[in-house]
Order: sequence, then structure tokens, then C-alpha cells
Amino acid sequence: MKYLNSIHPLSSALEEHLRQSIKHREIHKKDLLLKAGHVCNHIYFIKKGLLRCFYWKDLIEVSAWFMKEGDICMSVESFFKQQKSFESIQAIEDCEVYYLDYKELQYIYRTYPEFNFAGRIVTETYYTLSEQRLYSLRMQKAPERYHNLMDNFPELIQRVPSKYLASYLGITEETLSRIRSKKTIS
Amino acid sequence: MKYLNSIHPLSSALEEHLRQSIKHREIHKKDLLLKAGHVCNHIYFIKKGLLRCFYWKDLIEVSAWFMKEGDICMSVESFFKQQKSFESIQAIEDCEVYYLDYKELQYIYRTYPEFNFAGRIVTETYYTLSEQRLYSLRMQKAPERYHNLMDNFPELIQRVPSKYLASYLGITEETLSRIRSKKTIS
Repeated sequence: MKYLNSIHPLSSALEEHLRQSIKHREIHKKDLLLKAGHVCNHIYFIKKGLLRCFYWKDLIEVSAWFMKEGDICMSVESFFKQQKSFESIQAIEDCEVYYLDYKELQYIYRTYPEFNFAGRIVTETYYTLSEQRLYSLRMQKAPERYHNLMDNFPELIQRVPSKYLASYLGITEETLSRIRSKKTIS
Repeated sequence: MKYLNSIHPLSSALEEHLRQSIKHREIHKKDLLLKAGHVCNHIYFIKKGLLRCFYWKDLIEVSAWFMKEGDICMSVESFFKQQKSFESIQAIEDCEVYYLDYKELQYIYRTYPEFNFAGRIVTETYYTLSEQRLYSLRMQKAPERYHNLMDNFPELIQRVPSKYLASYLGITEETLSRIRSKKTIS
């Protein structure tokens, strides 16, 4: 609520409505928040913990991104279009999340037009992150992408298990280990 | 105006304000709308023509995306954060665009809160496209990405010159030509 209020002041009616409609859930480490093939019906705000978004490619899991406390989490295309998701979302640590139903969120956007200001800003922020990942994937090799993560998301480098980080970078754990040791020496 | 009205009705005051503040510009084929290193100060709505967004990678241009009539066009991170752009935008055909200044757009969002509804929907739509490109880049090989374009953006396949299309797919023009001839035979 503080986060949303900081973007654009919420009216007391909207704040009350949000308090009534936002739900809370705990997810154990390794449990799925969303399974590929299902529709992402909720938008999550992470209170505690770390999650990853991943796809299946030729029977191998490919990690697409990681989300931690303070982040908003969903399968973008599945949520916005209310269609089956290609990706899954899994807790890497024990997590606590707040969440809103898709229909409830649409009701809030229609009923409290001021909420669209915050919704737009949040969407712009995550759209920018998506474009940054696209640029990085297109233009940078694995070591550069690793250093990019180090600079911009140092906490992820510490908390995300190597196998998922390697999979995000499209390399083996051994190669990741070599990149890491070079970084330490230099 | 029709497009924006179809997402969310514009008040007559807002419609009048938009009419006064939206500017019009023609761009000749091959001219740059934005040059890397400059800040993207405008958001463009393409009335006519085709543009491409591209980066430089080791002295080679890499096409990142193509935008045609009806599309909104900008350098996302540069526009939202008002910082120097890594990418350039160039007209592939003679173009006509409508555009709004960044500051003017922020003024409109603050003064006419209902415009945030349309702004949010448009941002969600382009964010989804960005995520689709990320998925395609991460998961699909060039032939699959080409067929994906064929299915979802057939007009781009017709209109975008081969050298830019090949560059977008990360392949040579010869490989693109082979993919194209296979497609015709099958």
C-alpha cells in the first residue's frame, strides 16, 4: 500500500477497497505459484522471498527471470490476455505474497480511475526492465550479462542458486563458476 | 484520436488539448527519427510508413524491431527515464508521424487523469509484445522465429527489406533466403 501510495496518492475509499480485496498467501520453497498451461489469474506483490519464472525447452528448464521482495510478479502475456501461460513461476525460497484477482483489478481500474496512474507507472517500470533484458540477451555474451547482473541486481547474484543463474545466462554451471572466479581475481 | 477513444472515452477538454499539443512530421526514407546517444523526447504515433529500431554491435547494425502504421514508436528506456538512448530509430519508408513531447505527455497524465487508463492499456500491450520477443529470442531458432513473424506479422515479412529482417533474426541474408525458399516449397 505504501508503494502504491508513493507513486500516486490513493483515496481513502480506494485504500479501503484494496485492503478488502488483496489476499495473502504463503508458498513453500520449490512450490509452483503458476504452472505452464494454466491461466495466470493473479497479480502478486512479493512481501518476502524469491521466485523464478521459467520455461521448458526440449525437456530442459530455462530460467527467464527472478523476483524478490518488493517486486510485482506474474506471467505477463497470460495475465494481460487471460490466456494459458507458456511459463511457470516457482518459489526458490519460502515466500509470502499479496495478490489480487484479474477481474478484481479490472474492477478497481474502472471504479477508481486514479488507480490507473499507479498502474501505468508500474507497467512502464516493468516494461523497461523487459526491454533491458531483451537488449542484454541480444547484445551481450554471458560474461557481460553476468557483470550486468552484478552491477544492477547484486542481491540476485547472492541469492539465486547457481543452476538457475547459469540457466538464465544460457551457460553451464561450470562456465558460470569460471566467470565468477575471474571476477573475484580481477 | 480514434484509437485512443476506442480504449477509453476522451473528454472533450482532453480531446481539444490533444489536438492542440500533438504535432505532425514527415520523415524521408533512411532518415533517423532518433540517434543513439540522444534522449528520446517524443512518443510517436505512426500515421504512414515503416520504421526500424536498431543498435550497433561491434560496428554492425542489429535491427531490434519494426513499426508501421497504427503503431506507437519510441525508445522505451530512453523515453520513460529521459536518458540517453542505446538505440536508433530510422525510417525504412517515407513516413508520416504524429508526436507528443515527454513533458507534455506527463502534463496530460496529471491534468486529465482519465488518460492514464488509455496510457496503461497501451503500455500493457507493448509490454506484452516485448515479452513475446524475449521469449522468441530465448527459445526459438531462426527458422521458427521467421515462421512466428509470418504468422503474427505477415505484413512486416513483405515490407521489411531482407537485410534488416536477417539482422533481426541474427542470420545472414543467404540463410534467410534459404528459410524463405523452404517455406514456399512446403
